[in-house]
Amino acid sequence: MIDNAVSAAERAFEEYAELSTLKVAAFLDQIAEEIVGLGDSLIKTACEETALTADRLNGERTRTVNQLRLFATVARDGTWKDVRIEPALPDRKPLRRPDLRRTLIPIGPVAVWAASNFPLAFSVAGGDTASALAAGCPVILKAHPGHPKTSELVARAIGQAVNACGLPAGVFSMVEGASPEISLALVRHPVVKAGAFTGSLRAGRALFDAASARPEPIPFFAEMGSVNPVFLLPEGLAERHESIAEGLAQSVNLGVGQFCTCPGLAIGVASGDFDRFAAVLRSRFASTTTGKMLTPAITAAYCNAVSKIGTIGDIRVTTGVGDAPLPTLFETSAQTFLANRELHHEVFGPTAILIRCDSRDGVEQVARALEGSLTATLHGTEGDLRAHAFLLKILTRKVGRIIFNGYPTGVEVGSAMQHGGPYPSTTDPRFTSVGTAAIVRFARPICYQDFPAEFLPPEIR
Amino acid sequence: MIDNAVSAAERAFEEYAELSTLKVAAFLDQIAEEIVGLGDSLIKTACEETALTADRLNGERTRTVNQLRLFATVARDGTWKDVRIEPALPDRKPLRRPDLRRTLIPIGPVAVWAASNFPLAFSVAGGDTASALAAGCPVILKAHPGHPKTSELVARAIGQAVNACGLPAGVFSMVEGASPEISLALVRHPVVKAGAFTGSLRAGRALFDAASARPEPIPFFAEMGSVNPVFLLPEGLAERHESIAEGLAQSVNLGVGQFCTCPGLAIGVASGDFDRFAAVLRSRFASTTTGKMLTPAITAAYCNAVSKIGTIGDIRVTTGVGDAPLPTLFETSAQTFLANRELHHEVFGPTAILIRCDSRDGVEQVARALEGSLTATLHGTEGDLRAHAFLLKILTRKVGRIIFNGYPTGVEVGSAMQHGGPYPSTTDPRFTSVGTAAIVRFARPICYQDFPAEFLPPEIR
Repeated sequence: MIDNAVSAAERAFEEYAELSTLKVAAFLDQIAEEIVGLGDSLIKTACEETALTADRLNGERTRTVNQLRLFATVARDGTWKDVRIEPALPDRKPLRRPDLRRTLIPIGPVAVWAASNFPLAFSVAGGDTASALAAGCPVILKAHPGHPKTSELVARAIGQAVNACGLPAGVFSMVEGASPEISLALVRHPVVKAGAFTGSLRAGRALFDAASARPEPIPFFAEMGSVNPVFLLPEGLAERHESIAEGLAQSVNLGVGQFCTCPGLAIGVASGDFDRFAAVLRSRFASTTTGKMLTPAITAAYCNAVSKIGTIGDIRVTTGVGDAPLPTLFETSAQTFLANRELHHEVFGPTAILIRCDSRDGVEQVARALEGSLTATLHGTEGDLRAHAFLLKILTRKVGRIIFNGYPTGVEVGSAMQHGGPYPSTTDPRFTSVGTAAIVRFARPICYQDFPAEFLPPEIR
Repeated sequence: MIDNAVSAAERAFEEYAELSTLKVAAFLDQIAEEIVGLGDSLIKTACEETALTADRLNGERTRTVNQLRLFATVARDGTWKDVRIEPALPDRKPLRRPDLRRTLIPIGPVAVWAASNFPLAFSVAGGDTASALAAGCPVILKAHPGHPKTSELVARAIGQAVNACGLPAGVFSMVEGASPEISLALVRHPVVKAGAFTGSLRAGRALFDAASARPEPIPFFAEMGSVNPVFLLPEGLAERHESIAEGLAQSVNLGVGQFCTCPGLAIGVASGDFDRFAAVLRSRFASTTTGKMLTPAITAAYCNAVSKIGTIGDIRVTTGVGDAPLPTLFETSAQTFLANRELHHEVFGPTAILIRCDSRDGVEQVARALEGSLTATLHGTEGDLRAHAFLLKILTRKVGRIIFNGYPTGVEVGSAMQHGGPYPSTTDPRFTSVGTAAIVRFARPICYQDFPAEFLPPEIR
C-alpha cells in the first residue's frame, strides 16, 4: 500500500535534493497559493469533518499558508545551513590544513503523520510538511483518519503545485488508513530517513520505538503534548487573581482544550488570594459550555479520563454546563498530586487540576515531580520571580518554553519559538516542530575537503 | 557501582549548568594545563598500555589539549547557542506578539564511553568529554579497560582542575569495568540525559538500543567506524597511479589501521593504469611491517576477520611481513563484492579491499550498494569529477565528509569538520563527534516568553 508512495519519494529525492533554493521556495509559495485557491470549500469540508468552527479554521488556514511562506523565506535565505568554511593552510606544520567546507544537505525522504487537532496547520500541508520540503526532502504524508476529505483537498492542492513547478510527482505523496500497521510499515521502510509526528503519547512512542529498532535507525521527532503547568505566585494573585483565573479558564477551554499547549495543571500556595482565585476559576468552569471534540473517540477518551480522575481520593470537581464533553476543573492537594502518578499525565481536552500547596517548598516539590512539558508558565510580579528563583531553575529543566504572565496556548510561528521539550512532551528535546528551527530536523551536515569550487553546493563555493 | 557517580553528577548539574561561560572556559583550559602537567609519565603509561608509539601518543596529547582549549574558546565565544530574539509587537492585530528569546541550555548529565583507539583524544578527557563539559553538562566517563592506568592519570588531572576551579566534584566522574552490565546500567540511569560513544558497531548499537528503549529515551550518539571507500578515477590514475597507491597504503596502515577513518575499500575501473596502481599497492602492502594492535582481543578479531575474507570466492590476498597482525590487501571484482555482504563491513585494522569494476556503471553500482560511512574519497582530475558527477551525487548521500585527492585519515579538529555519517558509521548523521559542532549534541533550546531581562540567561538579555 505504501510502496508506490515510498518508491516515488525515493526517485524524486535525487532531483529534489539538488533543486535550487529559489525553486524550493517557489514551490512552497505555490502550495500556499493553491491552498488559498481552494477557497470556502476547504473551510466547509473541514468544518463538517472536525466540528471545529469556521472562524477557527479560517485562522488555521491563515497560519498554514503563512507557515508555508515562512519556510519559503527560510529556504531562500539559506542561513539555516550553518555554513562553516575553513580555507586551506598550505604552510601549516607538521601538516598542511586542507580546505574544509561544511553545509547541510537534506536527510532523505521524510514520513509525516498528520495531527487530528490541527486539520490544516499540522496536517497535510502543515508545519512538518513545510519544514521537510524546505529542507529538500520529499514527504510521504500519513493522513489523519479524522478528516479524510480535508486531507484529500489539500493533497490535491500540493499536487497542483508539484505540477505547476515541474517537479517529480514523488516529492509529495499521501497515504491513508486507520490501521497502525500502515504507520509501522511506513516508519520501517528503508527509504524513509526521518519521521515527524504530532499526536498521542501511545502512538508517538510506538512509532519512535519502531524507528529506533530499524536495522538503520532513523531520527523520529514525536510531539506528544504535555500538562503545561501554570504556577500562581503570591504577589501575582494578590494583584490580579481575577484576571489570571479568567485567562486560565479561557486558555484551558480554548478549542475545547484540544491544543498541545493546553494548561493542565495550576499550582500555588494556599492563601486567601489563592481561595479567591480558585473561586473565580470554579465559577468560570461552571459557566463554560464547551463545544464538540474532534472525533467521538477523542470525546470518549476524554470522558473516560475525567471520570477516572474524579474517583481519586479527596479531589473536588467542578464541571461546566451542557452535554459531554464537559469542561472539568479538579482541585486537590500537593500530597494527593504527588501520591498519584496518573494525575501527572496529559488529559486531552478542556480540563485542569488546581493544586493547593502548603508552602513554597510544596510548590517546588510538585515542580520537581513533573514530567517533561512543552511549556511552563509563571504568573506573578518581578518580586515573585526573585523570591522563586529556585522554582524558575527547576522549571527550565523541565520544559522547552517558559512564559511569564501569559498563557501557553497560542504558539507563535517564528524564528525564536521552541515547541519541543523533555520527554514525554517530545521524543527529542533538542528539536522544535514549530518555528523556523524545525527545518534542521531534516538535514545533516556534509563536509567537502579540498574540492574545486565548481563541484561544491552554491552556498559554500 | 555507578550510583555514586551519577548522583554526584546530578547534584553538580544544578550548579554547573548555571556557571558563567567564562568559568566553564577556564575549567576546560585548566584541564588542559593539568594534562600538560602530567608530563612524560602520561606518555610512558599510555605506551605501556596501548602498544602505541611515544611519537603517536605525544601527537595525541597535543590534540587532546588543543581540543580542550578549542572548546574553551567555543564556550567563551557563545555563538554556538544560536540565539534568536523576536521582540514583542504590542500593536500586532489580532493579537500582540509576545517577546520571545531562544537560547541553548545543557541537556543534563552526559555519559561518555572512552575509545580504545584514542587513549587520550577520545578517551577520558577527549572530544566527547570536552564538548559535553563545554555545553554545561557534567560527565560520567566510562573508562576503556584497554588503558586503565592512563585513564586514572587523566581522571586525576581533571579532578585537580575541578578542585582548582572550585567546582562540585560530580562535574566529572569516572567509572570502570569491562562488563557490559556497567555500560547498560549507565545508559539506563534516569539521571543520564545523553550518551556519546566511540567504538564497535556491536557495542554502540547495544547502547543505542538501550538508550532508545528507556522509559524516557535519550539521545545517544555512537560513532562506530566505517569502510571509508576511496574511488580511483581514470585520469587520476593515469597521472599519478604511483603516488596514490603510496598514499593509500600509508593511510590504510597508519597506526596499524586503527582509525575510524581508515580506508577499507578502493574502487576503480579495470585498465592498464589500474593494473599498474594495483601492482604498486600490492608491493607496498607486501613490504609493510605493521606494529602491535591495541589489545590482544583486537588483534584476534582482526586476524579472524581477515582469514574469513580470504576464504571468499576469487579473492586475491597480499600480506605484509612479520608477525600477526599482518597488513592485508584483498583484491576482487565488483560482482564478488556485490554478492558478499560481509565484504561491506568495516574490518578494524590494516586491511583494504581493492575492487575492480568493468565500467563506470559498475563503480556506481558498488557506490550505491555501500552502507553509510564517515568519509568517501575521490582521486582524479577535475575532468574526472565532471565525468563522474553522478558518482559524486551517490556518495554525498552515503557519507558525512567527502575528500578530493587526499586521504580520510587525519581528521581536522575545527569548526568545519563533520565526523559523523549515515548508519552504521553513526547512530545519527545529523551530528558530529569531532570539531566544534560536536557541542550541540548536548544542549537543547529553551524559549523565554515575556520575561524581564533580569531573569534571562545573559546571552539573551
